Amino acid sequence: MRCGIFDSGVGGLTVAGEIYRANIFREIVYYGDTARVPYGNRNESTIIRYSLEALEFLKNFDIDMLVVACNSASAWALEELRKEADFPVIGVIEAGVEGVKSLPTSTKLLLTGTRATITSQIYQRELKKAGYHNLISRATPLFVPFVEEGIWSGSLIEGVFEHYFHSLPREEIGGVILGCTHYPFLSEVFRKFFPNATLIHSGKSIVRYLKTHYNLPPTSTNSFQIYASENVSQVRQIAKDWLKLMGLQSRLEG
Amino acid sequence: MRCGIFDSGVGGLTVAGEIYRANIFREIVYYGDTARVPYGNRNESTIIRYSLEALEFLKNFDIDMLVVACNSASAWALEELRKEADFPVIGVIEAGVEGVKSLPTSTKLLLTGTRATITSQIYQRELKKAGYHNLISRATPLFVPFVEEGIWSGSLIEGVFEHYFHSLPREEIGGVILGCTHYPFLSEVFRKFFPNATLIHSGKSIVRYLKTHYNLPPTSTNSFQIYASENVSQVRQIAKDWLKLMGLQSRLEG
Repeated sequence: MRCGIFDSGVGGLTVAGEIYRANIFREIVYYGDTARVPYGNRNESTIIRYSLEALEFLKNFDIDMLVVACNSASAWALEELRKEADFPVIGVIEAGVEGVKSLPTSTKLLLTGTRATITSQIYQRELKKAGYHNLISRATPLFVPFVEEGIWSGSLIEGVFEHYFHSLPREEIGGVILGCTHYPFLSEVFRKFFPNATLIHSGKSIVRYLKTHYNLPPTSTNSFQIYASENVSQVRQIAKDWLKLMGLQSRLEG
Repeated sequence: MRCGIFDSGVGGLTVAGEIYRANIFREIVYYGDTARVPYGNRNESTIIRYSLEALEFLKNFDIDMLVVACNSASAWALEELRKEADFPVIGVIEAGVEGVKSLPTSTKLLLTGTRATITSQIYQRELKKAGYHNLISRATPLFVPFVEEGIWSGSLIEGVFEHYFHSLPREEIGGVILGCTHYPFLSEVFRKFFPNATLIHSGKSIVRYLKTHYNLPPTSTNSFQIYASENVSQVRQIAKDWLKLMGLQSRLEG
């Protein structure tokens, strides 16, 4: 099986890395739309248009499944993508909701994400359907630029957390959904701010989701190709570094 | 005369506002590439490609001159734009350098901008040509997201200034080039951090530059059209608000 993974930029590599580690696809083809990143503040029609272009690109690789690793695209473009694909299209939001299900439905949840993801109300709707009614949501658009600046801990990013979350009952929050693929880099600060919360990570959730919903016998991923609309060699280098950080040997090509 | 103004997003409206206020063109047509903003971390070839597409769009309006209000595009795309235009193309960088010329050449200058602008070395080269050798440059990519979040003063943004500028001899700096159209919104913090510095603002500089280098008899701007690759009605609303902030009556259309 060949899995296509699409993200607005490099953030989805956190998801791709988990899929790679899971050894459930023979081949992985990643496409990051780095020339137009970020999607998080864009509107619905732009996000749909860009996502359909990514699908067209990935169709060239005869993929058997498409994982939309970008939360903003998962929030807005999934339906349109499914109309144009003759293979399953899975978004990180439904996977994230599945990830929450390890927690009791009475848990006080905090949903964080880009403006596009939060505004779409998709997470909120799906979580309510799953029985979670105790939900606070916050758009946190400064997190992505901080992660991209390499500021993943320390007083500056803690000040930004304080800015977004100062009014919340921190100790009571039992689960935080990291609704953007960049946010796992801020896990340390999330843990400090929400000491009693389980962090729900898109990458780990999507692997669980894929294993639960699709028949994916164990295999060995022996091809991982990476493409991008800009700076592809830089993206490949980031992927190599991240896979190394995750303790994975890289067998990157492309 | 009809002036086209191009920017990666809404930031260039600070430049457009000054040109509007100057009453040197009968008509202004603004185009913001909001669907692909920001340009500041993109590479040369992408910025050139996007800029040429903007030029094609603005050619439809029979413009007599093009002002590139985006520093990143001025840094990388000016030469290519000039090849494709049969009218003058003026960038904010040459204007910014002209703006500096009110200061003695011995002045210690600080250049701030996006990564693309600083990496291009265009400002640095032009300032040296003009006799300014006492120059420090800093890429400050977090400033744009803060401006877009509406955080223009206070301890959080001051912490970011501290992050970028903590090692600088603040009192000695006599001029700060705001090398990105978003940065004038942070003027208050810049003044606090660099109490002895003159702030060089792209909008004011470009008006001075246009008046000096082109024969532009006083007129009254009676048409100001605004277009954008995304969220055009939102961009028009921002323009109205900003013109109001600048004490200008808006005669916006389009």
